[in-house]
Amino acid sequence: MRIGIDAMGGDFAPLEAIKGCADAARKYPHLHLVLFGDQHQIEPLWREFGFEDPRVTWVHCASVIGMGEHAVKAITAKKDSSIVVGLSHLAAGNIDAFMGAGNTGAMFAGALFTVKPIEGVQRPCLTSIVPKESGKHGVMLDVGANADCKPEMLNQFAILGSLYSQLVYQVDNPKVGLMSIGEEEEKGNALTLSAHALLKENKAIHFVGNVEGRDLFSEQTDVIVCDGFTGNVIVKVCEGFYYRLAKRGVQDDYLDQFNFRHYGGTPVLGVNKPVVIGHGISKADSFVKMVELCEDIIKTDLVGNIRNSFQLINSGNTAHE
Amino acid sequence: MRIGIDAMGGDFAPLEAIKGCADAARKYPHLHLVLFGDQHQIEPLWREFGFEDPRVTWVHCASVIGMGEHAVKAITAKKDSSIVVGLSHLAAGNIDAFMGAGNTGAMFAGALFTVKPIEGVQRPCLTSIVPKESGKHGVMLDVGANADCKPEMLNQFAILGSLYSQLVYQVDNPKVGLMSIGEEEEKGNALTLSAHALLKENKAIHFVGNVEGRDLFSEQTDVIVCDGFTGNVIVKVCEGFYYRLAKRGVQDDYLDQFNFRHYGGTPVLGVNKPVVIGHGISKADSFVKMVELCEDIIKTDLVGNIRNSFQLINSGNTAHE
Repeated sequence: MRIGIDAMGGDFAPLEAIKGCADAARKYPHLHLVLFGDQHQIEPLWREFGFEDPRVTWVHCASVIGMGEHAVKAITAKKDSSIVVGLSHLAAGNIDAFMGAGNTGAMFAGALFTVKPIEGVQRPCLTSIVPKESGKHGVMLDVGANADCKPEMLNQFAILGSLYSQLVYQVDNPKVGLMSIGEEEEKGNALTLSAHALLKENKAIHFVGNVEGRDLFSEQTDVIVCDGFTGNVIVKVCEGFYYRLAKRGVQDDYLDQFNFRHYGGTPVLGVNKPVVIGHGISKADSFVKMVELCEDIIKTDLVGNIRNSFQLINSGNTAHE
Repeated sequence: MRIGIDAMGGDFAPLEAIKGCADAARKYPHLHLVLFGDQHQIEPLWREFGFEDPRVTWVHCASVIGMGEHAVKAITAKKDSSIVVGLSHLAAGNIDAFMGAGNTGAMFAGALFTVKPIEGVQRPCLTSIVPKESGKHGVMLDVGANADCKPEMLNQFAILGSLYSQLVYQVDNPKVGLMSIGEEEEKGNALTLSAHALLKENKAIHFVGNVEGRDLFSEQTDVIVCDGFTGNVIVKVCEGFYYRLAKRGVQDDYLDQFNFRHYGGTPVLGVNKPVVIGHGISKADSFVKMVELCEDIIKTDLVGNIRNSFQLINSGNTAHE
């Protein structure tokens, strides 16, 4: 299993990215890691934190896409950047997954341009883990890739999220809720009202109806679908709440689960190869989690399963129709 | 000052509504309170919790609008309900404000039908207090009255929220932020991108740009504008977070500020008379807070100030244009 890593991606890269890779390499002897980035920066750091191991190699990339750069412009202009080169290696089959904590927009747009959306998937999306008190991992999507959504996109997110929940988080028959502003079917905005009608008829998922903001943390759903604007706002409100309380010294096991460091970022769901995007402020431990997430996605063949589901839907030979 | 109270509104009405009225009457000797509701239920409770005082009177109302009833159907059908009778007394000038913790939709729709939107206000809205660590009260709007918004509505919410923040919460030149998914002007969905352009040109407010979910709790804004869907989701996420942690025994002064009981509900901003809607689960202390909010709104002539602002805007003789 060969996992490609953007060594230059993240606020604390390359230092923390490389530390994380060294930790992951020690922890998982069966993995091959390929670092993409500036050789002159990687080599001395690797000597410091790494160890002699043929399982870790690197590919020199002459440029880096900055955190603040315009995503599409940057991936078009910087063909020799660690993100573009890494994704090209993924598309070519040299690596089995590519991960990074750099510019989210560039990672996402790059994934669309290089490994491309799976046939039938209108718009790939990003996810967030919603921790439950039971210790279960809820999944919310989209959380920012698609600010404006059509009802059919939410219906597809439900399928993508269900497969992700089922395969990577081992949830049987995941319960899908639609984020809205009232539990009743007739409450919501124009988007959720139309999406509700589609979700109700979607036999590829286990739809449990509308949920409200306060139900985010409850066990009544495993997957919550929403447009990327709403999802992004929710994720950042939770993050803000967590940081504010953590800074105040509030200690609580459940609250602590809102620390992003427990999770390995998000896959770009709906593209043809495993791509995982981490938080910009990732440190070594988060890079290890990202490696683990990549491995889970490869092992469970999440991408293949998504492809099969959408093939069935496209062919019309499915309970979904 | 005569404040009308829906004695039948709320999950714990009429008991808690009447307890709250008795407390408010004792605390504020200058207020006249008028209770609207079923005399046969009010009288015995009032004898128990109240005291002989000509400042508290009641108006018998034969019916009640239930919490789950369809708002518009209910206010049309139940002309003798405590909400409709109370609002009619408000429209007639028999009372100076009307408040209740009953069916939010019926209170809101009833306010639109009886006291009517202020001329020039496209869509009245509801607010929520966002507690800041400094102890300041931030205001967010809309939080549920308008699930689908046009950019101009958000621009008007900014004016309504600024006046509310300034007059009732004594914030000088309140800073207005637009809830979005990136601080940069070009980030957001179709609605916020268009609204941003209007807000930037709106000279009646102090616009500070986009804010993100995590900025909700920061001091960088006093007023946050968003569509009612987004606002409602945010309020309920915060409420859910608060309850979840409170239930776990987490104690923190700032966290405690997310308990709705510290606040007296929300005015219906943009209608011709003061109408205040409380949380359905209000108990006596929240009814007292609602009375206090009504008094603040009357004393500061919030409604008159909003009317003047929109008159100026309508006449075109304003910096707003």
